[in-house]
Amino acid sequence: MTRVAWSPDIYLRFADDRARPTRDLLAALPPGPRAQVVDLGCGPGNSTALLAARYPEAQILGIDPDGAMLAAARAAVPQVRFQKGRAEDWLPATPPDMIFANASLQWAEDHDRLLPRLLGLLAPNGILAVQMPDNLDEPSHLAMREVAALPEWRDSLSGAARQRRALPDAKALHRLLRQGSSALQIWRTVYHVELPDVGAIIDWFSGSALRPYLSVLDKDAQARFLDRYRSALSERYPPLAMGQVLLGFPRLFFVAVRKG
Amino acid sequence: MTRVAWSPDIYLRFADDRARPTRDLLAALPPGPRAQVVDLGCGPGNSTALLAARYPEAQILGIDPDGAMLAAARAAVPQVRFQKGRAEDWLPATPPDMIFANASLQWAEDHDRLLPRLLGLLAPNGILAVQMPDNLDEPSHLAMREVAALPEWRDSLSGAARQRRALPDAKALHRLLRQGSSALQIWRTVYHVELPDVGAIIDWFSGSALRPYLSVLDKDAQARFLDRYRSALSERYPPLAMGQVLLGFPRLFFVAVRKG
Repeated sequence: MTRVAWSPDIYLRFADDRARPTRDLLAALPPGPRAQVVDLGCGPGNSTALLAARYPEAQILGIDPDGAMLAAARAAVPQVRFQKGRAEDWLPATPPDMIFANASLQWAEDHDRLLPRLLGLLAPNGILAVQMPDNLDEPSHLAMREVAALPEWRDSLSGAARQRRALPDAKALHRLLRQGSSALQIWRTVYHVELPDVGAIIDWFSGSALRPYLSVLDKDAQARFLDRYRSALSERYPPLAMGQVLLGFPRLFFVAVRKG
Repeated sequence: MTRVAWSPDIYLRFADDRARPTRDLLAALPPGPRAQVVDLGCGPGNSTALLAARYPEAQILGIDPDGAMLAAARAAVPQVRFQKGRAEDWLPATPPDMIFANASLQWAEDHDRLLPRLLGLLAPNGILAVQMPDNLDEPSHLAMREVAALPEWRDSLSGAARQRRALPDAKALHRLLRQGSSALQIWRTVYHVELPDVGAIIDWFSGSALRPYLSVLDKDAQARFLDRYRSALSERYPPLAMGQVLLGFPRLFFVAVRKG
């Protein structure tokens, strides 16, 4: 995972809207208590706090590659243990009975290898619960790549535009996970989020999808880039009758129960 | 609504798989008790039973146009009151504080008129919670219409093929409902349901989407129709590595809170 340093502040401003997919993933888990739960790619601890509330009896461990995120998470959920680590090479001391990965594995480079690996790290009957933004083909992201491909940015931003790979689709997930699972649920939800205007779309992505682009530009270039991005968004998100815009935000979910 | 008579037996066999969208709709409702809850298009009472469990203090009323469905519902949820009625012209004695419509309004002919009407029937701050299959463009339904358009069936089945209209999309729902709402959530989920083979896809739809086609054919013609449908499905749902098929089942959801 070559995830760039996110800004915990910007990310937390949208905690409420962004918590809906996390809550939906939690709601789809099989009932019953868990002993050892890992929040893989825990970010600033939003999902960790929800896990701690759902599994008060569990030992919870938050893992993230980003030091600033881990510091925010430790402050937000002090009762939980956190460790620096990347999903690709993290190894648990003992097999956990749940790995929860909320909006983190989309940055992985090789899902075909990673996802079966994570399922294999679980204890028998352990649960792998995953939710990933699946928006690379949304107008919001097409517009990002379009602006990044303009002559002014092409050289500096070509790496950023290629940073995230297309996710496996439902059939591919089934192929990767079904044989090792006693149960497997796969679903994809598009949340149609109402935002006041296209500027709010920029704010929405400024802590996540825009970071790879902005992080390699200086302040002036950032401003010019965002100006072009705003124009490109305005064409793709015409205002609705009451002035707002609807941001379609697709998320790919799965819950796999490791064979007993 | 020109809904044909469904078979409560066939429908109930799939109660577990089909209950997931109902549970997802329930999970998205604002917290807090409700006084008067209407289950509009309650079918055999599956959703009514879940509503009764979620709102034990509420007066619940189930409405359905189909007498066989109402009989099944009365047997399944005896503590609830049921009435025959259609969403288009049903009028509550007093404004309810929730109208819940689970997999029923997809049969409506004029959503542009129906949905604002239902929102307007609610008490202030009442909730309109709706979930509709949105699968007319799925391979399962394209194959149905394709077979129905063959020379053998064209005349007898043209009415059935036109029975359901395309649903409004997210933007259209927003336009229809936002002005009368203090809050509005819209989302669309594709559930990727694992089934043992294409025969199970036929079983899945035999109590619902296939009924308009089958109900106008005699026994022999039904068998020939299903045979052709099975072939058409086999082309579109090639078996996965372990022999199963994945049925993509999209559902459109919204929860609107009427202005106070």
